[in-house]
Amino acid sequence: MVMETLQIRLTRGLVEEIQKLVDKDVYPSTSEAVRDAVRRMVIGSGELPKPIEKTVEKIQKEVKFQLLGARGTRDFLPEQQIVREQITSVLRETFELYGYSPLDTPLIERSDVLTSKYAGGAEILKEMFSLQDQGKRSLGLRYDLTVPLARVIGMNPQLKMPFKRYQIGKVFRDGPISLGRYRQFVQCDVDVVGCSAMSADAEIVALVNAAFSKLGFKIDIRINNRKILNGIVASAGIAADKMDGVILSIDKLEKFGVDAVKKELAGKGIAQDAIDTLLDTLVIEGSNDDKLGKLKKSLGENEGITEIEEVLSLVDAMGASCTFDPSLARGLSYYTGTIYETFLKDSKITSAVCSGGRYDEIIGQFIGKESVAAVGISFGLDRIYDAFLERDEVVQKTVTSVFVIPIGTALESMQFCERLRKEGIKADIDLLGRGISKNLKFANSMGIPSVVFLGQQELKEGKVKIRDMKSGEEKMVAMDAVVEVLKK
Amino acid sequence: MVMETLQIRLTRGLVEEIQKLVDKDVYPSTSEAVRDAVRRMVIGSGELPKPIEKTVEKIQKEVKFQLLGARGTRDFLPEQQIVREQITSVLRETFELYGYSPLDTPLIERSDVLTSKYAGGAEILKEMFSLQDQGKRSLGLRYDLTVPLARVIGMNPQLKMPFKRYQIGKVFRDGPISLGRYRQFVQCDVDVVGCSAMSADAEIVALVNAAFSKLGFKIDIRINNRKILNGIVASAGIAADKMDGVILSIDKLEKFGVDAVKKELAGKGIAQDAIDTLLDTLVIEGSNDDKLGKLKKSLGENEGITEIEEVLSLVDAMGASCTFDPSLARGLSYYTGTIYETFLKDSKITSAVCSGGRYDEIIGQFIGKESVAAVGISFGLDRIYDAFLERDEVVQKTVTSVFVIPIGTALESMQFCERLRKEGIKADIDLLGRGISKNLKFANSMGIPSVVFLGQQELKEGKVKIRDMKSGEEKMVAMDAVVEVLKK
Repeated sequence: MVMETLQIRLTRGLVEEIQKLVDKDVYPSTSEAVRDAVRRMVIGSGELPKPIEKTVEKIQKEVKFQLLGARGTRDFLPEQQIVREQITSVLRETFELYGYSPLDTPLIERSDVLTSKYAGGAEILKEMFSLQDQGKRSLGLRYDLTVPLARVIGMNPQLKMPFKRYQIGKVFRDGPISLGRYRQFVQCDVDVVGCSAMSADAEIVALVNAAFSKLGFKIDIRINNRKILNGIVASAGIAADKMDGVILSIDKLEKFGVDAVKKELAGKGIAQDAIDTLLDTLVIEGSNDDKLGKLKKSLGENEGITEIEEVLSLVDAMGASCTFDPSLARGLSYYTGTIYETFLKDSKITSAVCSGGRYDEIIGQFIGKESVAAVGISFGLDRIYDAFLERDEVVQKTVTSVFVIPIGTALESMQFCERLRKEGIKADIDLLGRGISKNLKFANSMGIPSVVFLGQQELKEGKVKIRDMKSGEEKMVAMDAVVEVLKK
Repeated sequence: MVMETLQIRLTRGLVEEIQKLVDKDVYPSTSEAVRDAVRRMVIGSGELPKPIEKTVEKIQKEVKFQLLGARGTRDFLPEQQIVREQITSVLRETFELYGYSPLDTPLIERSDVLTSKYAGGAEILKEMFSLQDQGKRSLGLRYDLTVPLARVIGMNPQLKMPFKRYQIGKVFRDGPISLGRYRQFVQCDVDVVGCSAMSADAEIVALVNAAFSKLGFKIDIRINNRKILNGIVASAGIAADKMDGVILSIDKLEKFGVDAVKKELAGKGIAQDAIDTLLDTLVIEGSNDDKLGKLKKSLGENEGITEIEEVLSLVDAMGASCTFDPSLARGLSYYTGTIYETFLKDSKITSAVCSGGRYDEIIGQFIGKESVAAVGISFGLDRIYDAFLERDEVVQKTVTSVFVIPIGTALESMQFCERLRKEGIKADIDLLGRGISKNLKFANSMGIPSVVFLGQQELKEGKVKIRDMKSGEEKMVAMDAVVEVLKK
C-alpha cells in the first residue's frame, strides 16, 4: 500500500475551534480531530454530540476543498510563485549570457514521437500520460524536453549549427508519488546541438557554476565520461553485453554504498575478482589530477580521459570548477561521453539538482541521419525551489512595494497610485473602501514594506504620509518626492 | 471537409534542386512539386524517371518531419520565442505594477472540477482534452485559467481579500483548427477576487491602457455592463426567458451587422417592433456622455448605468480611456456587470486581443459559498504576437549580442568570453574551431550585432578587434574597455 502525506490547510478560526475540543479532551490533538473527521467522511461512524458534530462538519467541508487538485500536482500561491519566478529568472538570464536562446514546444506531442525507439526508454514510457484528440489521433504529454528538441531539429533543417537553446517547461510523469516526486514538474534545459568539441561540455560547467553562484548556493559539479566508465568495466574483464546492467548498478554507489553494489553485481553473475577490480578502480580519492593519473595507469590509452582532460583545462581557464568522479554513472543508457551531476553543499537536498551529459546518437537516430552531436544539462526547478525554502528568508505574499490608503480621497488616491505606477513603483491601493486600521492590518499581513496615507489635508498641501511598515516610522513627504523616497 | 494550410519549410539546397525541375518544365512551380511528392507519399502513383524520383524522395523525407508535431500545436523557434517573451515580460511587469502577484496552477485538473456546473459551459466542455492517470482517475487539460482560480480560492480559505493575481499559462481546446485558432494557446489573465467596488473594474481599464502603450499599440477598449444590456432587452418588451438567446445574437452585431442580427432575432421569435426598439437603443453614436444621456432617458433608473458612470469617472481620473458601447455583449452567460473587449487600431488583427468582465456568481457557486465578487481580463498572447509580426521589426535569431572568434587562441578566447558574461554581456563563442569567414557568415546569419576577434598578436597587446556587423566598421580596443564599448 502506497502511503501519501497530504498537507491540509485550515482557516485559523476553525483551528481555534478544534483546539477548544482538544482542551476539553474530546480529541488528543488537532490533527487527530482532522483524521477523525476524514474517517467519518469516508467510512462514517456513529453519531456525535451536536457541538462536536458541527465542528467535524466544518473540518470536512474545508478538507474536501483541499482534495480538489489532481493527484501529484501542486498549486503555487503568490508567496511560492514569487520565489519560483526569481529562480527561473536567474536561470533564464544566465542561459542567455552564455548564448542560449529560448525555444518553446507544445506540451502535447504525437505518441509516435514520444515512444519512438530512441526516445526516453521503457521506464519513462510506462509513466507517460496518454490522450486522444477528436480525430482519434494518439497523443501524449511530454515527459522531458529532449525528445521535443530532437523533433524540432528534425523538422527544421534550416537551423544553423551549433544550435544553442534553452527551454523552461512543465513535463509530466504518471508515476508513484512521494516526497519531492510530482506528476507535473518543471525542467530547465540547456543544450548545444551540432558541436562535438569539448568546448561545449566545458561551457556547460561554467554556466552551471555561474547559475548557482547567482542563486547563492555552493555546489559540487561531478563530472565523468562514459568512455572512461566503459573502459573501467572492460578492463575489469567484464563482457560487453553486461555493460549496461553493470553501469545501472554502479549508478547506485552513491545511494547504497560499496557493499550493496558488490552484492548486486554478484547477483548479476559478475565474477568476484572482476567486481573487486572494478570497484577498486572506480572508488579512488585525491585531486582531479591524482585520479586521472591513477586511471591512466590502469586503463592506458582512453578517449574519455583525453576528453575529460580537455574539459577540465577549459573549465579551469574559465575560472570555474568541477570534480572528476570516475564512479559517476547516470542511469540513462543514451549518454555517449561527458556526464554531469550537480549537488548542493550545505543543504538537506541530497539528490542532484542539475544533471545531464553528451548524447551524440539520440538526435541522429531519431531523425534518421548520421550522428548529430549534442550535449546538455537540465536544472530541476522543484528541487532548487525546495532548497530555497530551507533558507529563512522573508516570505513575500505579494510583489507590491507600496500600498496606498485613501482617507476620503478615493478618486485622488487612485490618480496618485497611477502616478507611482507610471514611475515604475509596484503600487496597490485599497479597492474596498476599508478603514485605516483594517487597511494597515491588510498591508501588514501581506508583508508590503510601505504604506502611503492620503487624506484631504494632505491633498491640500500636496503631500502624503509614508509609513515604513517594519520600523513603524512615519513622515510627511511632498507628492513629487514620493517616488524618490520609495526607490531608496 | 475542413481544409488546412500547412507551412512546409524545406532546406535551401532542396528548393534549388526543385527549382531546376521547374526550369525544365517538369513541374509548373516549386509548390506543385511539393504537392506531387505528398500525393505520391499518400496515394502513390506511377514510376518516375530516376533523377526526378530522387528529388521527390528528398521532398518526402523533409515533408515527413514537418508533420511530426501534434495537430493544432506550434513550435516557437528562438526568433519567434524571443518576441513572445518580450511581450509576456511587458505584461508581467505591468500586472505587477498594478499590484497583481503571480499564481501557478497545474495544466491537468480533475474532470469533476473542469466539468462542474459553473465552469466553462457546454461549448467549451465539448473541446476538453480528457485523460486518466494510472489510478484510473478522470482528468482533463485545463481550457482556461478561471476555473483553476475558482478552485484555488476554494482550497485556500486563508487567502486575504481582495486577492489580486495574474497567471500566464497554456490552455488547451480540442476544437476545429483554422488560421489563428490553435489547440494549445497562451492566456495572460489578471483578476481581482473579493471586491465588488467599481474601483477594481476601473483599475483593469487603466492596466490594459498601460500594457498596450508599453507594447506600442494603439487600442480601443470597449466597455459595457450586463445590467444595461439586460435593461435594454427588457425595455424593448422582450421576455426574460429569451434574454440569453437575444444577447447571443447581439454579440454578432460587430461581425455580421444590423440586418443579419435582425433576421436572426426574428428567427428566434422576437416581435418586429421589439427588434426595432432593441436595435435603435443599442446602436447609438456620440461621446460616452452622449450615449449615457440617451440611455438614461430610455431606460430610467438602471444599476448598470450607475456602475459604468463610476467606472468611467475613475478611468478618467487615472488618465486612461475607454469607449462605452451599449451593444457590446460577450457571449459567455456568466458575466454579471462590467464587460470589456479590446481591439487594436491600425492592425489587420480585427478580433479582440483582450477581453473579460465581472463575474460575481461563478466562484461562489463553484465553491458552494455566497457570491464571491470577481472581475478580470484575459490577454490573448497569440493574437498580440501575430500583431507584433505585422510590424517590420528586425528579427533576432538569438539573444546573443557579441560573438567571439578565436584565431589560434581557443583557451584564452573562452576565458575572455567568460569575462564578458561576468560583466552581463550576452556573449557567445565559436565552439567548432571554424575559420574566420565561416564564423563571420554564421554571426551574420544569426543577426548578432558585434563580433570580437582574438588572435595571438591581439592577445600579446592585451587588445581585441571589434567588428560592427551592420556597418562593417572595425576597431582595436583594449580588453578592459570592451565591455564599455559593447554596452554603448
